[in-house]
Amino acid sequence: MNKQEIISAFMFRHACKEFDPEKKIPDDDFKFILETGRLSPSSLGFEPWKFMVVQDISLREKLKDGAWGATVKLDSASHFIVCLTMKAPLIRYNSPYINDFMVNVQNWQGELLETRRKIVEKFQTIDFGLETDEKLFEWASKQCYIALANMLTSAAMIGIDSCPIEGFNRKNTESILKEEFGIDTANFGISYMAAFGYRLKEPRPKTRRPIGDVVIWK
Amino acid sequence: MNKQEIISAFMFRHACKEFDPEKKIPDDDFKFILETGRLSPSSLGFEPWKFMVVQDISLREKLKDGAWGATVKLDSASHFIVCLTMKAPLIRYNSPYINDFMVNVQNWQGELLETRRKIVEKFQTIDFGLETDEKLFEWASKQCYIALANMLTSAAMIGIDSCPIEGFNRKNTESILKEEFGIDTANFGISYMAAFGYRLKEPRPKTRRPIGDVVIWK
Repeated sequence: MNKQEIISAFMFRHACKEFDPEKKIPDDDFKFILETGRLSPSSLGFEPWKFMVVQDISLREKLKDGAWGATVKLDSASHFIVCLTMKAPLIRYNSPYINDFMVNVQNWQGELLETRRKIVEKFQTIDFGLETDEKLFEWASKQCYIALANMLTSAAMIGIDSCPIEGFNRKNTESILKEEFGIDTANFGISYMAAFGYRLKEPRPKTRRPIGDVVIWK
Repeated sequence: MNKQEIISAFMFRHACKEFDPEKKIPDDDFKFILETGRLSPSSLGFEPWKFMVVQDISLREKLKDGAWGATVKLDSASHFIVCLTMKAPLIRYNSPYINDFMVNVQNWQGELLETRRKIVEKFQTIDFGLETDEKLFEWASKQCYIALANMLTSAAMIGIDSCPIEGFNRKNTESILKEEFGIDTANFGISYMAAFGYRLKEPRPKTRRPIGDVVIWK
C-alpha cells in the first residue's frame, strides 16, 4: 500500500463533533470498520471487547445523561459504538471464560494449552501485577483502545469521519447501561464511545509536537 | 483506499516472535511508521507519549533482564521501540507541561484557552475520576495503545512485521530505564515495547471470535 495515501488518511481524521444527519454510512463500509476492530490484536489474544452499536436514537439520548451533553452531537452520527470491556470475572486467568476461550477460540490443546495457562497466570499475577479487579479492567480497557485506533483509522481510510468519546461519567454511564440497555455490568464496563459519520465542516488545523520531541534514539 | 487491501493488511499482521536478522527496515519506512504514531489521536489531544527507539543491541540486552527473555527475540528485530508514557507530574490538568502544551502546541488562546482548561479539569477530576497518580498514568497509557495500534497497522500495510510486548516486569523495567537509559522515571513510565522487522516463518492461523459474538446491535 502507498505510504502517502496512508498518511493522508491520518491527516484527514479528526475528532468530528457534528456529523451531517442526512448522510448514512453504507452497511458494507460500517461492516468493514467493525471488522478491523474484530481483527485487532490484544494482550494474550483475549479480545476483551464487545462493540455495542446503538442505532436507536432514543437509546442514544439516554447515554447523554451520563455524558458531556452537547459536546458531540450524538444524534447526528450515522453509527454510534459503545465499547463494552470485559471485567475481572471474565478475564482473570483462571475464569471459565478464559478457559473456554483458550480451548475453543484460540485452539490451544494438550501441552501447549498447559504452558499457555501458566504464561497467562504469571503475566497477570507477577509480571504486570494485575492483582485487583480494577487493574484487570484497566488492562482489558487498554486492549480496547487498540481496536478503537484501528476502527478510527480504517474509517478515515475510506473517507468516513469519527469521534472517539471519553467525555462521560463512568459510574453514571454504567448505571444507564445496566438499567436501559440490559448490560450485565458485573462482567462488562465501558471504555469509550465512538461516533461515525460524515463531517459538516472542516476542522481546525491538526496540531502535533514535532517528531524531534516525540522520538528518542538510543 | 481499497477495503479489501486494508483487511489483507489486518490478516497479514500477527505477533511475530522472531525476525530475519539480516533484513533491515529502510529508514523511510520506519520514519513512516513513527509518523503514524505521532499523528495518532489521544484524549484531549495531549499526546502523552515518547517513542524510544533502541537500536543499540547491548541496550536491548539490558531490557531482557526485566522481560520474558526468549519469548521474543529482541536482537533479531530491525527496529525496537519502548513506549514511554507521561506520568501525573506532566499530565495532571494544572501542570506546567499541560499549560505549555495547550498554549504552544495546541494554540489555544484567550477565552477558548480558559474554557479548555475548565474542560480538562472537570474531565480529569470529576468525569473520569482520575484522582490518583496511578489512575492518571493508566489513562495516559491507554492513549499510548492508540499509537501502538496505528504503528502496528501501518507497518503491516507496507509489509512490515511487528510484535507488541507487554511481557515484562513493570517495576524491574522502570529501574532499568532509569539506570541504564537515563530516563526520568518520575515523569515517564513504560506502557509497552514493540519490535519491528520481517518474519522468518509463517504464523499459526489467526483466531478470532466470530463477528456475531463481538457486536451487539441496539
